[in-house]
Amino acid sequence: MNIGVVGGGSVGLLISSYLSLYHRVRVYVRRNEQAHLLRNEGIVEEKSRENFSVESLLVENMKEEELIIICVKQHQIEDIMPMINQTNSQTPLLFLPNGMSHTNYLSHLTQPVYVGINSHGSLREKDNLFSHTGKGEIAYAQFNASEEGDYWLRNHLNNISFPVRFCSSWKILLKEKLIVNAVINPLTALFNVKNGVILSNKYLYDIAEKLCFEAAESLNLDFEENWHRVQTIAKKTSENISSMLKDLMENRPTENEAISGYIITESTTELPYTTFVYKAIQALEYKNS
Amino acid sequence: MNIGVVGGGSVGLLISSYLSLYHRVRVYVRRNEQAHLLRNEGIVEEKSRENFSVESLLVENMKEEELIIICVKQHQIEDIMPMINQTNSQTPLLFLPNGMSHTNYLSHLTQPVYVGINSHGSLREKDNLFSHTGKGEIAYAQFNASEEGDYWLRNHLNNISFPVRFCSSWKILLKEKLIVNAVINPLTALFNVKNGVILSNKYLYDIAEKLCFEAAESLNLDFEENWHRVQTIAKKTSENISSMLKDLMENRPTENEAISGYIITESTTELPYTTFVYKAIQALEYKNS
Repeated sequence: MNIGVVGGGSVGLLISSYLSLYHRVRVYVRRNEQAHLLRNEGIVEEKSRENFSVESLLVENMKEEELIIICVKQHQIEDIMPMINQTNSQTPLLFLPNGMSHTNYLSHLTQPVYVGINSHGSLREKDNLFSHTGKGEIAYAQFNASEEGDYWLRNHLNNISFPVRFCSSWKILLKEKLIVNAVINPLTALFNVKNGVILSNKYLYDIAEKLCFEAAESLNLDFEENWHRVQTIAKKTSENISSMLKDLMENRPTENEAISGYIITESTTELPYTTFVYKAIQALEYKNS
Repeated sequence: MNIGVVGGGSVGLLISSYLSLYHRVRVYVRRNEQAHLLRNEGIVEEKSRENFSVESLLVENMKEEELIIICVKQHQIEDIMPMINQTNSQTPLLFLPNGMSHTNYLSHLTQPVYVGINSHGSLREKDNLFSHTGKGEIAYAQFNASEEGDYWLRNHLNNISFPVRFCSSWKILLKEKLIVNAVINPLTALFNVKNGVILSNKYLYDIAEKLCFEAAESLNLDFEENWHRVQTIAKKTSENISSMLKDLMENRPTENEAISGYIITESTTELPYTTFVYKAIQALEYKNS
C-alpha cells in the first residue's frame, strides 16, 4: 500500500520505519533539510542500527496516497489541515495526535476518518534517527468511516512487531489516553523525572492520584479503572522521558493546552490540581522563552 | 549587654555581626569546627569584607547571658529547648524562627519570652562568612513578657543600621510573616527561581495569588492586605534566593512543615494549592535524599 505519514517527529519516524517494511512510505515534513536526509539516508533506529528506506517530501507537496497517517502534534494540526483538505476524498485518514481538541477539525472532512493513539515509546534523536524506547501498539477507532471500514486499517497494518488494534469508541479511546497524558506528562515535566518516579516518589504518587481523579471526573470516566491504567503505563515506561519533559528540555512548545488545558475546559467544576500543573507548565515555557 | 545568639546560620551570623558593634556577643553553634572558626576569625560580611569579633561556644555549654536570641530553624527548636530551659529564669529570650508551631514550646517557659521575625536578606556562604543581600528589620512582640518589658528590646538593640521594631500582637506578626513565606518559599523552590520571578512570570503570579488567598483564609487574616505585603517583599527581595530554594540546593531539610504544613493543619477547609506545593517540596526533598 502507498502510505503517507505526516510529521517527522518521534511518532512519525517510528511509524514510518515499521510500515516501510511492508509498504511504500512517504514521510511529509516541514523542513527541506529533514526531507533531504530522510530520502538520502533513510530512517535509523538507534539501538538496533536498523535502516529503513522511505521517501520524503515537504508537506505542501502532498501526493495521492492510499492512506494518510497524521502524526503531528495537536497545535500543528491547524497548519496542515489545508493540505489534508485537498487530498482525494476517498483517501482514509488516521489522526494520531494526543488530546481531543483536534477532533473539531475532523467533522467536516469528507474522507473516511479514523482517530487513534500510539502507546509505543520513542524519542527522536536527530532528524532521521529515533530510539524505540518501549514497545506499544496503535489503537484506533472510526470517527466518520463507514462500518465496513472498521477493520480495514488493522487488516492492512497489523503485524506481530507492529500491533494495530481496533476499538469501538473513538471518544473512550482518546479520553483514556488523555487521562494518562494528563497525569504523566505534566508531573514528569515539572519535576524533571522519568515516568516511573511518579510511582516511586510517594509524594508525586499522591499528586498523580489527584490529577487522575480530576481528569476522570472531567471526562466522565471511571477513576479506579483509569488510575489502574495510569499506573500500569507509568510502570511499563518507567525509564522513559515523557514527551512533555523532552519538549521542555529542548525548548519546544509543549502539548499543555491540548492535555491539561482541554481537561480544565471540559470540566463543570474547579480542578485545582490540574489547574496548578497547567499553570506550572505555562510558567516553565514562559521561563524558557 | 551580654547577648547569646543561638544558631550560626545566615540569620544568626547577620544578627551577631550587627549586635557585636555595641554588645558582647556569644554565638552558640552545634559544631566545634564552626565555634573554633568564629572565635578565631570572627564573622565576615562578604560584600563589605567587614570583620566582626564574637565569642563562640557549643550550644550545650550555654553560659549566663543578659539576652538570648534564638535563630535556629523551627525543626531544630526541639533540640535546643533543654539548654534554653536551663538558662536563668530572669534572662529574656527572643525567638526568631519562621513559622508558628514553635510557640507551643514557649508557653511553659518562666523566662520573659519575645517572638519576632527577621526581614533582612542574608545567605551564609561559609561557617563564618555571610552575605547581607537586603536590608530589613527585626520586628518583635511580647509572648509572655510583662508589659513594662515591651520596649525593652527595642531600647537596647535598635539602631539606624539595625532597626528593631516593637509590635503589639505576636500572633499577627508571626502570621503575616508566615503568609509571605508560604507564597515565596515553595514557589521559588519548586520553580528554581529568584524571588522576583513570582511577580514577573505571569503564570507563577497566578499561583502565588492563590497560595496567598489560601494562607490568609487559613490564618483568618485579610487577603488584600497580605497579598499587597507579599508583592512588596517579593519586589524588594527580587534578586534574592529564598531560604527554601537555598536549602534544596544544598540538600538540607527545608521549613516546608513549619510553613505550608502548618497552614494546612490550621485550616478548616481544603487548601489544594498549598497542599500541592507542600507535597511538591516533600517530593523534591525525597528526590534529593
